[in-house]
Amino acid sequence: MQDQPTASDRQPAIDLHGLVSKLFPINRSLTGSGVRETLKIVSGHIDLAINEVATGTAVLDWHVPMEWNIRSGTITTMSGRRLVDFADNNLHVLGYSKPIKAVLSRDELAQHVHTLPEQPDLIPYRTGYFADNWGFCLPHNLWQSMTDDEYRVDIDSDIAPGSLTYGELFLPGETSHEVLLTCHVCHPSLADDNLSGIAIATALAMRQARQPRRLGYRFLFLPATIGAITWLQRNESRLDTIKHGLVLTCLGDANAFHYKQSRSGAIIDRAVEHVLRHSGRPYEVMPFNPYGYDERQFCSPAFDLPVGCLMRGVHGTFPEYHTSADNLDFVTSEALGQSYAMIATLLDLLDGDRTYRRVDGRGEPQLGRRGLYRAIAGQREAGGATQMDLLWFLNLADGRHSLLDMAIRADVPFARLEAAARLALDASLVVECD
Amino acid sequence: MQDQPTASDRQPAIDLHGLVSKLFPINRSLTGSGVRETLKIVSGHIDLAINEVATGTAVLDWHVPMEWNIRSGTITTMSGRRLVDFADNNLHVLGYSKPIKAVLSRDELAQHVHTLPEQPDLIPYRTGYFADNWGFCLPHNLWQSMTDDEYRVDIDSDIAPGSLTYGELFLPGETSHEVLLTCHVCHPSLADDNLSGIAIATALAMRQARQPRRLGYRFLFLPATIGAITWLQRNESRLDTIKHGLVLTCLGDANAFHYKQSRSGAIIDRAVEHVLRHSGRPYEVMPFNPYGYDERQFCSPAFDLPVGCLMRGVHGTFPEYHTSADNLDFVTSEALGQSYAMIATLLDLLDGDRTYRRVDGRGEPQLGRRGLYRAIAGQREAGGATQMDLLWFLNLADGRHSLLDMAIRADVPFARLEAAARLALDASLVVECD
Amino acid sequence: MQDQPTASDRQPAIDLHGLVSKLFPINRSLTGSGVRETLKIVSGHIDLAINEVATGTAVLDWHVPMEWNIRSGTITTMSGRRLVDFADNNLHVLGYSKPIKAVLSRDELAQHVHTLPEQPDLIPYRTGYFADNWGFCLPHNLWQSMTDDEYRVDIDSDIAPGSLTYGELFLPGETSHEVLLTCHVCHPSLADDNLSGIAIATALAMRQARQPRRLGYRFLFLPATIGAITWLQRNESRLDTIKHGLVLTCLGDANAFHYKQSRSGAIIDRAVEHVLRHSGRPYEVMPFNPYGYDERQFCSPAFDLPVGCLMRGVHGTFPEYHTSADNLDFVTSEALGQSYAMIATLLDLLDGDRTYRRVDGRGEPQLGRRGLYRAIAGQREAGGATQMDLLWFLNLADGRHSLLDMAIRADVPFARLEAAARLALDASLVVECD
Repeated sequence: MQDQPTASDRQPAIDLHGLVSKLFPINRSLTGSGVRETLKIVSGHIDLAINEVATGTAVLDWHVPMEWNIRSGTITTMSGRRLVDFADNNLHVLGYSKPIKAVLSRDELAQHVHTLPEQPDLIPYRTGYFADNWGFCLPHNLWQSMTDDEYRVDIDSDIAPGSLTYGELFLPGETSHEVLLTCHVCHPSLADDNLSGIAIATALAMRQARQPRRLGYRFLFLPATIGAITWLQRNESRLDTIKHGLVLTCLGDANAFHYKQSRSGAIIDRAVEHVLRHSGRPYEVMPFNPYGYDERQFCSPAFDLPVGCLMRGVHGTFPEYHTSADNLDFVTSEALGQSYAMIATLLDLLDGDRTYRRVDGRGEPQLGRRGLYRAIAGQREAGGATQMDLLWFLNLADGRHSLLDMAIRADVPFARLEAAARLALDASLVVECD
Repeated sequence: MQDQPTASDRQPAIDLHGLVSKLFPINRSLTGSGVRETLKIVSGHIDLAINEVATGTAVLDWHVPMEWNIRSGTITTMSGRRLVDFADNNLHVLGYSKPIKAVLSRDELAQHVHTLPEQPDLIPYRTGYFADNWGFCLPHNLWQSMTDDEYRVDIDSDIAPGSLTYGELFLPGETSHEVLLTCHVCHPSLADDNLSGIAIATALAMRQARQPRRLGYRFLFLPATIGAITWLQRNESRLDTIKHGLVLTCLGDANAFHYKQSRSGAIIDRAVEHVLRHSGRPYEVMPFNPYGYDERQFCSPAFDLPVGCLMRGVHGTFPEYHTSADNLDFVTSEALGQSYAMIATLLDLLDGDRTYRRVDGRGEPQLGRRGLYRAIAGQREAGGATQMDLLWFLNLADGRHSLLDMAIRADVPFARLEAAARLALDASLVVECD
Repeated sequence: MQDQPTASDRQPAIDLHGLVSKLFPINRSLTGSGVRETLKIVSGHIDLAINEVATGTAVLDWHVPMEWNIRSGTITTMSGRRLVDFADNNLHVLGYSKPIKAVLSRDELAQHVHTLPEQPDLIPYRTGYFADNWGFCLPHNLWQSMTDDEYRVDIDSDIAPGSLTYGELFLPGETSHEVLLTCHVCHPSLADDNLSGIAIATALAMRQARQPRRLGYRFLFLPATIGAITWLQRNESRLDTIKHGLVLTCLGDANAFHYKQSRSGAIIDRAVEHVLRHSGRPYEVMPFNPYGYDERQFCSPAFDLPVGCLMRGVHGTFPEYHTSADNLDFVTSEALGQSYAMIATLLDLLDGDRTYRRVDGRGEPQLGRRGLYRAIAGQREAGGATQMDLLWFLNLADGRHSLLDMAIRADVPFARLEAAARLALDASLVVECD
């Protein structure tokens, strides 16, 4: 059994906001150099395996798409004034835009312009995956001010055979059971969705690499949907070792935590809810639905993996979502740190969750002659078990209740039941069950 | 799979209030010519089998009673003024009154008079099944005004060996499974209780006769209690094909819908609650209890059939119940039509409830290359499936969730999940399970 | 089946407050003459077996402790004024105090003085089981007024090999199944905690001895913890006959009833909640926790007996708890009588809880020809079954629902379902199941 976690175990080893800031300017998409550059930066912190899967490869019901790369994209007036420039903000060009160089009437251009009339100062994030299309995204106010008859548009991009890129790190544990942690790496300059998830997953991987591990930890950095589908295709034969899974997204904003449950109910659901309940922070638990992030793929009927999704703001419900307002001001060090600590607590719980059986379960053992009252007093300042925690543990250590079961029933933080287990184990009152 | 129901499928083919009005004047009882006349009128619309079971026949713990028929019943003053006349309202004579022709003191007559002191203008409905008795029912105010010393009473009736009459229609389906729909036909001029049920059952039988049917539909028009007991005795060996059942009563008044659950929990309970929930109308679900209508017999312990009871006003709780106020003004075309539509929706649900399995359940299928986004857009105006409905369907099509299970989990009307199933089936993404 | 209980069955045969008053002055502890004297008084009412278990005997994880007896304990001024005297209130001396005779400075004495600064007029109850210690308990105000430099302390006590004493009465029933009722006998002059439990257990034992019994009733009068552990050690091989159990404590105060559920859920939990619900008195049901009274031992994991705990005031939560305010004014005849009646009702329920099966479960039986409407009318004044109760019984008498199941589902007092069962049994409509 690992030692009791200390406060420092809940502090990331890297500056999370700093990592988000470093990744922010890169133009990411489902495929292409931006994803590779992102994963290379992540690789500076963790021992990430980079996988390339060729365009056209059949993956479940899908095929790996063409690779998209873009060098520039502008709208200029006929007099040469640059009004919209990809170099200023990579949201300005519709994802997967094909190249174009033309003079268009305003009406022709309007067919390719995306704005947010109700948020007229923001640039929307739009993408046209797999569609033979091009477009620009701009603030509605700017578009309204563009009243010339003609404009010059110029997108210098490639859509060509290449590959899909994803990153994977597996940290083996003492047992074959593993925890899956995934995030998506396919969004351009959007800080919360999902650089927050990438940064936190990176820091958690650094943390788990340093820790003794009963469970294995698998970190996936995937382009959404097609990346998850590709990974599932390639790993189909070994999914049964995944005992708990969590999709990490939108974890840097100031909204309350939202946990979306797995499809069929799982320990991860009870564990996350327990950690949130004892966090002292507001939270909401939402039932599974088949929309959202890559839990859609992991929870598809033939896989039905025990995977939930942890968020703060919920996709589609906060005003900054998929706009240029999801920027480096929208995510904070404080929120990132809270999210990191929450998940670190969760991983400690999953790793420490065991089942014990009293050596002799008849009546209460005599605590005094074993020095357990003294031991409890000694733990007190370290936030250890109370006498009541120890009584709960000794009562429920029947080989059928896990520590998580006990913590939920006693309604106290998991770590205190774990501390009680340590006391009882040291006193030879219990044995661990397989 | 049947085509999507259209609005016209939810309109009765006959004038429900007109049928109630035609049946209203007939004097019905457990037995006798009124029941026969009633079933003959119903037979004008549907191919009803009329069954006669002789007085004295042993049926479960009971025996078929004597047949009662009545020609007239009056109370007149000694001077010949007719104060109470069965010809005016058949509620005036206590059901199963034996014949009498006598002059009685007011005090003697008082032993045989039933009134409602708290509703002094209304005639109560009373019956004395199986009791050697006679009586009159009249408004309390009329009785109070009757201050003569003596009155002449004259009831011209027979209680004699005959038979019990009930009607049955079975519409076979593709499978041996069937839905039981029952109503009682033993009340005299009471419009809601239960001419509403008779009229709606008749119209539903007409509807189901025209529809393709996966399930069989059995319509029973029974005298209450003894009729149900008689039918159960005669059909005991084949009850196991009844998969869903509903007792129809008091469906023409303006009260909110009330559904009383089956004894042991059944799909019918979940189905009715689902339809009511998405009806936009107020409703209440009540747990089973052993009082009420013929669900008492269908849900007796040795049968324990999956039979609930759908009502608007609940017997014994609304002021018009079992009085002369339960008349043709109390039931409305609008309420009858709503009830009909509600049950038609329910029958479409029961008939359409199937289980599907994804041909390949790994990940989400690619909707775009199968034209499913276009198909969804095409269905939109017809109230078809949304993209979210289709995602729910594809996620839960695992051979274990019925369409009803899915609709309840997604919390959307059943028909939308059914429409999603059609899209997926057309795209060969799923197969139907047995 | 026993006859219907009458009101007099719910009245104790002895004056409960009188018995509490008689026991109050005795100094009880885990062991010693006070326990013996207490059990001797109880033996005057019931045929109690007194058991003595020698000091040092190994019992589960424990050993029977030394026996403690005390003759006197005083604090006097140097001038001879007696300030604190065990003879005035046996709470004044810390339980298991070793003998001492000394002159001490006030500061030295302060190490051995226990007070309640927030309840300065009350003497606390404290005990130092198994610790090599001595002490005095006194009102904080008195201690504040003691400003001399030195005091004389004198405790004349023995801690010596002897035995632990407990009482047991078993009233056999027709079957081998039994109900366990326990109370603790180790507290000195505290009326509610737990002379109330002792008095009520005594009266209940008198009651059950007079009654026909389907179940056996086992009454235990135990020193807390070590007494329960000792009894469990000595009876380990025959615990499987205990089908229901209840710890009785703090039953004489005016607080609402509190029932603490058993560890793993049991009929006793549903039965107590049912009785409380229909008592017309306020009550609260609390989930099991591993703190409290001897349910801790009975519900330890290797035993996991179906034992709950019935209280009014909950230990540790009412101001009189473990102070000199838990005296003969704090407990009332009225509250003791209510508690007795509540448990008597519960025992009648447990003893009368059976399962029945309709001889012919098809449809409703005809009540009229069996005289059951008359029988119901006849029972009415005696609080017997209503027609609805009989219908519930006949509907649920399927061999799978106990009378308690039926009473909970019908939401009527158990005794009415029991009365319905009697009617149906008399009419040969049902048979009792094994």
